Amino acid sequence: MKFCSECGTPVEKKIPEGDNKERAVCPNCGAIHYVNPKIVVGTIPTYKGKVLLCKRAIEPRYGFWTLPAGFMELNETTHQGAMRETWEEAQAKVELGPLFTVFDVMMAQQVHMFYRAEMSSPDFGAGVESLDVKMFAEEDIPWDELAFKTVSKTLKLFFKDRAAGQYTLHTGDVFDHTDWPQSSFKV
Amino acid sequence: MKFCSECGTPVEKKIPEGDNKERAVCPNCGAIHYVNPKIVVGTIPTYKGKVLLCKRAIEPRYGFWTLPAGFMELNETTHQGAMRETWEEAQAKVELGPLFTVFDVMMAQQVHMFYRAEMSSPDFGAGVESLDVKMFAEEDIPWDELAFKTVSKTLKLFFKDRAAGQYTLHTGDVFDHTDWPQSSFKV
Repeated sequence: MKFCSECGTPVEKKIPEGDNKERAVCPNCGAIHYVNPKIVVGTIPTYKGKVLLCKRAIEPRYGFWTLPAGFMELNETTHQGAMRETWEEAQAKVELGPLFTVFDVMMAQQVHMFYRAEMSSPDFGAGVESLDVKMFAEEDIPWDELAFKTVSKTLKLFFKDRAAGQYTLHTGDVFDHTDWPQSSFKV
Repeated sequence: MKFCSECGTPVEKKIPEGDNKERAVCPNCGAIHYVNPKIVVGTIPTYKGKVLLCKRAIEPRYGFWTLPAGFMELNETTHQGAMRETWEEAQAKVELGPLFTVFDVMMAQQVHMFYRAEMSSPDFGAGVESLDVKMFAEEDIPWDELAFKTVSKTLKLFFKDRAAGQYTLHTGDVFDHTDWPQSSFKV
């Protein structure tokens, strides 16, 4: 952020009155430009026990496998965003289940949220951001070729909970290896 | 967004190649300016059964009561943000419990997340954004003077779950009255 997006004047970095953090402030129109973390929403789409994964056709992590997920947009709910991403990346229609993981990814300034999801049919296909889309049984998951830590953690927890016969919400900081997840609880 | 924040040139609204939504795009440097929903993090601070509320000293909803909450900042987790807001608005130190509510607030382009929280002592005080801070027993909650729907919904669900002896994660769209919450489940 170098210029004011409202009036085009070079911004100054300073702590606004009543604030305690440095922000980009416009010396001309007074606009304060806040920058905050973004939400990534996705699903764990399943059909007859198998999980759908997408091979990424875009950077970062081109060619690696991921659960369908992407940035939440304005004018949609997290539910709608998760379903939209599943359609865009994997051309799959799903019925959403409960929220399953909420991960802080502080290094990327993101929060990742994955919903459990049942595919309403075995139909799917590669969207423009995917090289390939496939259904994987647990034993066939390409663990060494997964794109993101939040994806591998979500899948591991999903299979663990499925084996235990009880799904729980999992939250935590995905980069805090010493105490991860921070909260994996039965309520 | 009228000017490019990278080079100060007036932006154009158009759909970038490979995208399907209109964005502010810079005709000079090519920067695409995405705007996404923001995360509001907060807590339900309790001490000996009472809940801490803050009387807002700022707009919107000046003079109304709220749970401590505010925009998640860069370089913090949702946990850290929730604890920071509780300190800034109510000068209270808390130990966080599980995530309790995740609400889509589409009209405000926000997602609100509240954690259960135990105060480590009965000490608290009004931060600069609060006119007053008080502990309320359930029967004394000022329901008609609460600042936000996500606060009243979170408090109602909290007291309901507490009475039932089992807390669950609640998610949903706070403005969808016909089917609210979308997901209130035992896991």
